[in-house]
Amino acid sequence: MQLKTISDLLTQNTVIPEVEIKGWVRTFRANRFIALNDGSTINNIQCVVDFEKFDEATLKRVTTGAAIHIKGELVESQGKGQSVEIQVASLEILGDSDPETYPIQPKKHSFEFLRENAHLRTRTNTFSAVMRLRSSLSFAIHKYFNEHGFYYMHSPIITGSDAEGAGEMFKVSSLDPKNPPLTEEGKVDYTKDFFGKETNLTVSGQLEAETYAMSLGKVYTFGPTFRAENSNTSRHLAEFWMIEPEVAFMDLAGNMDLAEDFMKSVIKYILEHNREDLEFLDQRLQEEDKKKPQAERSDMSLIEKLNFVTDNHFKRVSYTEAIDILRNCKPNKKKKFKYLINEWGTDLQSEHERYLVEKHFKCPVILFDYPANIKAFYMRLNDDGKTVRAMDILFPGIGEIVGGAQREERLDILKEKMAAIDIPEEELWWYLDLRKFGTAVHSGFGLGFERLVMFATGMSNIRDVIPFPRTPQNAEF
Amino acid sequence: MQLKTISDLLTQNTVIPEVEIKGWVRTFRANRFIALNDGSTINNIQCVVDFEKFDEATLKRVTTGAAIHIKGELVESQGKGQSVEIQVASLEILGDSDPETYPIQPKKHSFEFLRENAHLRTRTNTFSAVMRLRSSLSFAIHKYFNEHGFYYMHSPIITGSDAEGAGEMFKVSSLDPKNPPLTEEGKVDYTKDFFGKETNLTVSGQLEAETYAMSLGKVYTFGPTFRAENSNTSRHLAEFWMIEPEVAFMDLAGNMDLAEDFMKSVIKYILEHNREDLEFLDQRLQEEDKKKPQAERSDMSLIEKLNFVTDNHFKRVSYTEAIDILRNCKPNKKKKFKYLINEWGTDLQSEHERYLVEKHFKCPVILFDYPANIKAFYMRLNDDGKTVRAMDILFPGIGEIVGGAQREERLDILKEKMAAIDIPEEELWWYLDLRKFGTAVHSGFGLGFERLVMFATGMSNIRDVIPFPRTPQNAEF
Repeated sequence: MQLKTISDLLTQNTVIPEVEIKGWVRTFRANRFIALNDGSTINNIQCVVDFEKFDEATLKRVTTGAAIHIKGELVESQGKGQSVEIQVASLEILGDSDPETYPIQPKKHSFEFLRENAHLRTRTNTFSAVMRLRSSLSFAIHKYFNEHGFYYMHSPIITGSDAEGAGEMFKVSSLDPKNPPLTEEGKVDYTKDFFGKETNLTVSGQLEAETYAMSLGKVYTFGPTFRAENSNTSRHLAEFWMIEPEVAFMDLAGNMDLAEDFMKSVIKYILEHNREDLEFLDQRLQEEDKKKPQAERSDMSLIEKLNFVTDNHFKRVSYTEAIDILRNCKPNKKKKFKYLINEWGTDLQSEHERYLVEKHFKCPVILFDYPANIKAFYMRLNDDGKTVRAMDILFPGIGEIVGGAQREERLDILKEKMAAIDIPEEELWWYLDLRKFGTAVHSGFGLGFERLVMFATGMSNIRDVIPFPRTPQNAEF
Repeated sequence: MQLKTISDLLTQNTVIPEVEIKGWVRTFRANRFIALNDGSTINNIQCVVDFEKFDEATLKRVTTGAAIHIKGELVESQGKGQSVEIQVASLEILGDSDPETYPIQPKKHSFEFLRENAHLRTRTNTFSAVMRLRSSLSFAIHKYFNEHGFYYMHSPIITGSDAEGAGEMFKVSSLDPKNPPLTEEGKVDYTKDFFGKETNLTVSGQLEAETYAMSLGKVYTFGPTFRAENSNTSRHLAEFWMIEPEVAFMDLAGNMDLAEDFMKSVIKYILEHNREDLEFLDQRLQEEDKKKPQAERSDMSLIEKLNFVTDNHFKRVSYTEAIDILRNCKPNKKKKFKYLINEWGTDLQSEHERYLVEKHFKCPVILFDYPANIKAFYMRLNDDGKTVRAMDILFPGIGEIVGGAQREERLDILKEKMAAIDIPEEELWWYLDLRKFGTAVHSGFGLGFERLVMFATGMSNIRDVIPFPRTPQNAEF
């Protein structure tokens, strides 16, 4: 019987005379105990070496980071901390790791240092746990939509349209950047570019997803999106992944139901499937927290925050009600907010969102019916003429995590809204076609995937939840 | 009881007094029979209208493409072609569709016309079937890897490295294209660009996936990749999706086992879950085929081709054996091949690959141990010094569908191979690190997702299997 991964071995509770495993050395203690990891679990398997049976030269090469091949007997562990261990019968060095130069030493490294070594950082417990969770969340998302009759749709990455206006875009070109062809007026002649026009990297797949919802019914995107904004913060990436479901014949109330059920479902999935990684990260966060001044510590542990989402009903509150609450709340009156809430129409900041969730309602909150002028043109105008059928979902610790809306399905009103912000109709002729031919109520939302991974792992810098982060001045690897 | 989709309704076999459905009109026949579709299945539900009960003005608005809301009784169908139908009690028009201007008429449209209306083409049977299959294949892929202990890894889209040399790359920039900042030597000064260096769109996530395999063990990517090649053919896209699994401690034989099992599994998935869409496309292809001259017709129907993959062992043949077979085969001797096979070392064309699969072996074929000089630098050199541990999987009708390799894990040989093609070591320092610290045998492969969708749907133009194709001179939508 050949078991394949350390995860498999660690769940055995019988003696197995012959097992075989390959992995990387985490530590080698007392010339006797190898802690071996192969990525299949956060736990190492202990491999016990009788150093008298192996030559010294080989044992010297058992260093942190080395790849080795172990054969031996799986037995009940004599020591603490593990139920089984391997009594090593043979040990082969597959790949050395020079302890003088190997960057990932068995000690605490700063996250900044590990970002510079992003190609090796999943060799640490924290980053392997984060990336296993990232993978699990991805699968949970696909599984949820598949089970609920949604079709996965790949919206285009390179786009000729820059109409959504969600932010600055990266240009995509194959022209000679130094000597681009020029028109007679001296402008860059994009008719000579690869696509025969100016193209950018997408900021959202929503508009394209709407075209598919209006034929296939229920669809979602899950793909990379881009912002060329020079924001060097712990919450911004130039390249990040978005999930955008879109459903025909669904109104805002249905959208809220869907989003709540979806978020609960994917978080339940990791609570069920990634318990060990979550417990490790929960512990890590609690240790981090202890170093902070009392006022900055979290009220909830990581796993408590996840349960807070799965166990509570998401409170639905109109923007107008929320403004009333915020205007009259203590931190506003005592000027504890950085941005004070004075009047209807102002956009909410993370501090306000967190107050509503953590202090006032003590549950996840869905705010809806936002002022039209702080939301996108494609959101459905309410009869009051000043609010739109938008919704944001607010989570503890993080504030807004999901943003969505019922879409404006009425051709005339959509055209008016586009005209008001100078989007030419030719630019979005295909989007308007959806309102010309068989239009219907439809809704959807967007979830920034890295925001979800941050929430689910307790990591506080978005650069630490994506394999190779792209940020201003950084596109390494 | 409210059933939600037409797919749900069509699988009922009891009378249901009150049902409710929303969808788009495909046809309205004899002022009596509405064929309604909501994207949940290729099948329409027949809604029977007693025209005396509805006002003429409403019935006139029941046109192809209109969105309507039907309430009525689900009954056993009186007519042929369906088991149940709805006796309409109420009918509401949600969105009109002007029959004079609606592009998707109930008749055969050319695929070229439908490409120009890619935002509406999933309102046809063919494209809705293709895109449902695309979605199912995506899910089958994630499901397979999840069940086999792989982690999904998002490799970066914007890359600062152009070392892989898989083809021409698109430039990504946020500099002013007309007046870019220049260095003293008059070159474009990329230190002033967003990332502080020259950046491109990725051509493959493999090298980054290797970094994760060498810590997490088994990983895969599934993301967009790009080629700025001016190839205006039915087999090339500028933007397409790739699947790239990568596994530590796995050699080429293991890679072949994995690829065979994986391909069989995803195709079995659609045979089980998408029968109706496949049967429709099978039928479509047979009708297409009838119009072709005998010599160009397929030997197998679509579903036969899928079974050919799931039911046959993939024959493993070395490149050298394959060249012997091809050099001595009839079409080569009779000069029927466009490219004649004369000597060892030549690259194979689709005609040769298809000969091996369809005529010689009559099963899917895995070719391996290719000449080093026609394969990439990172493939493991064999002891003969002239072949590498590469493999290609060949399918009927299409030729190569998967390309993979065991990777060169030896630092010195990898450095030599990089030097030979002028890749500076600084460029791939992180890739070399994997061979410096705990190196081990590892392997992986790449599957162009659209090639798989073409194979699985029988579509012959790659532009017809991706929602919004990007090709030279075309980035519409």
